[in-house]
Amino acid sequence: MSNVFVLGHKNPDTDSICSAITYAHLKRELGMDAEAIRLGEPNNETLYALEYFKVSLPRFVKHAADEVNQVILVDHNERQQSIDDIDEVQVIEVIDHHRIANFETTDPLYFRAEPVGCTATILLKLYKEHAVEVPADIAGLMLSAIISDSLLFKSPTCTDQDIQAAKELGAITGVDVEEYGLAMLKAGADLSNKTLEDLISLDSKEFEAGDHRFEVAQVNAIDVSEVLDRQAELEILIKGAVASKGLDLFVFAVTDVLNNNSEAIVIGERSDIIESAFQSSVINNRVLLPGIVSRKKQIVPVITEALS
Amino acid sequence: MSNVFVLGHKNPDTDSICSAITYAHLKRELGMDAEAIRLGEPNNETLYALEYFKVSLPRFVKHAADEVNQVILVDHNERQQSIDDIDEVQVIEVIDHHRIANFETTDPLYFRAEPVGCTATILLKLYKEHAVEVPADIAGLMLSAIISDSLLFKSPTCTDQDIQAAKELGAITGVDVEEYGLAMLKAGADLSNKTLEDLISLDSKEFEAGDHRFEVAQVNAIDVSEVLDRQAELEILIKGAVASKGLDLFVFAVTDVLNNNSEAIVIGERSDIIESAFQSSVINNRVLLPGIVSRKKQIVPVITEALS
Repeated sequence: MSNVFVLGHKNPDTDSICSAITYAHLKRELGMDAEAIRLGEPNNETLYALEYFKVSLPRFVKHAADEVNQVILVDHNERQQSIDDIDEVQVIEVIDHHRIANFETTDPLYFRAEPVGCTATILLKLYKEHAVEVPADIAGLMLSAIISDSLLFKSPTCTDQDIQAAKELGAITGVDVEEYGLAMLKAGADLSNKTLEDLISLDSKEFEAGDHRFEVAQVNAIDVSEVLDRQAELEILIKGAVASKGLDLFVFAVTDVLNNNSEAIVIGERSDIIESAFQSSVINNRVLLPGIVSRKKQIVPVITEALS
Repeated sequence: MSNVFVLGHKNPDTDSICSAITYAHLKRELGMDAEAIRLGEPNNETLYALEYFKVSLPRFVKHAADEVNQVILVDHNERQQSIDDIDEVQVIEVIDHHRIANFETTDPLYFRAEPVGCTATILLKLYKEHAVEVPADIAGLMLSAIISDSLLFKSPTCTDQDIQAAKELGAITGVDVEEYGLAMLKAGADLSNKTLEDLISLDSKEFEAGDHRFEVAQVNAIDVSEVLDRQAELEILIKGAVASKGLDLFVFAVTDVLNNNSEAIVIGERSDIIESAFQSSVINNRVLLPGIVSRKKQIVPVITEALS
């Protein structure tokens, strides 16, 4: 039984799973009895990375306090994104690259947040600062996390530090970064085993702007039309979500990971703001979003401003 | 006119002033147009350090937004301890060694908090990480901050990292750390130009525990009795503070920086908890606190638990 859990956020993405494994490894090298856990099911992209680099999936844990007193958070800091019983354990460290909110401690702790594209980019610095060698499989997971968060360096969230880190990690693993990255993104964009309910909920986040509430779901795809051909069924599900959650707007963005564009279905009373906000015509509840791939940087701020 | 202000907390101590100067220097070396400012009057200890190493006192600034859009916080993160118009500027970085509370941003930022005894200990790491040389005067200020926060390495808040950092900084400055440190602490403990009102307010913090509110003021002294000989006058002032602020308890601790003990005046309806909490007799509103020097680690948690 380990003493400290290292965990990423709920609805885990590749960065959350891989950074938990990576940081638990570093902490063990430094003498801490740390174990990576996960708060939900991994996606296909993450499974591809783990299989490629032959690393086991961390186990799912619902309540941390049953087993440990202390946890380390990676890739998140907001309480509502963390393990359900976060208030019953002590957070001793946070490594993150998001905004800081809904976070408070009674004691000083190690809190390292940096405005880079991926948690793994910060973790590589920590290996260097502690002069710990990065094993090839761990380097592969860090590389996967950076490729995932940056959509192979195409996302506007990607920084020079992320690109440099990926270059160094690619050299350690020996893989061709472009080739491996494309294969990993394609694996993640394989939607064949997903239900329509999965598509609009697996990677979906709710936001507030003024008195309005809106939700943005996003899926990566190789063939965008394959998803959007089922628009009629998707609209029924989305309208159900809008009604049950009392939303003013729901945006379901399908992102073409090969060409770095998105196309979205927009539903809700305030879908009228979409045309002017994105300067693109809405026809039959559908809108083209050329060059838009980042919910965080390119979709949410634009809607927030239009609604405020 | 600079673009970014670097600032420590209100009622600035030596760490807040020296770390602001230090980090502004590092950021300028890295190409940012940064200026250290202060939020209040420096104490005698800080003035001694600045004079010794021939560094100018940063200017006092009441409103940041009149001059800059962005600030960097050192040695604090809680909004109520920061500049009054903190909500009107963007916090782009935080370097701190306290608990995290009342802090929230809309965007990712560089946030570096570590559980060490002094902000300057973290700053020395940052110089190394950026491979920037530490000039002798800046090294002297960092050394002063560490000596101040750790009471020459005697406080329980002091970590091995602080001691190691002080050793390295001592080597850069060329001063005898023990000798300089003692002289600096003595300068800070010179209370001759302080009014009694100053003594109970300059380094005083309010806390909550359950439904109770208490305040702990602390002064460093070479001759504790010199301060406590004026107990009758001090009690009048303290009772006034208790009444006007609706406090349940006021602790005024006078810390002997040479022998690492404290003696306190305790006033208020809940001063009954002091005897059992500290296992020391209260006679005539006075209590001896052997070995106690740290408000953060040795006084506040004990009172908090006793009142809760």
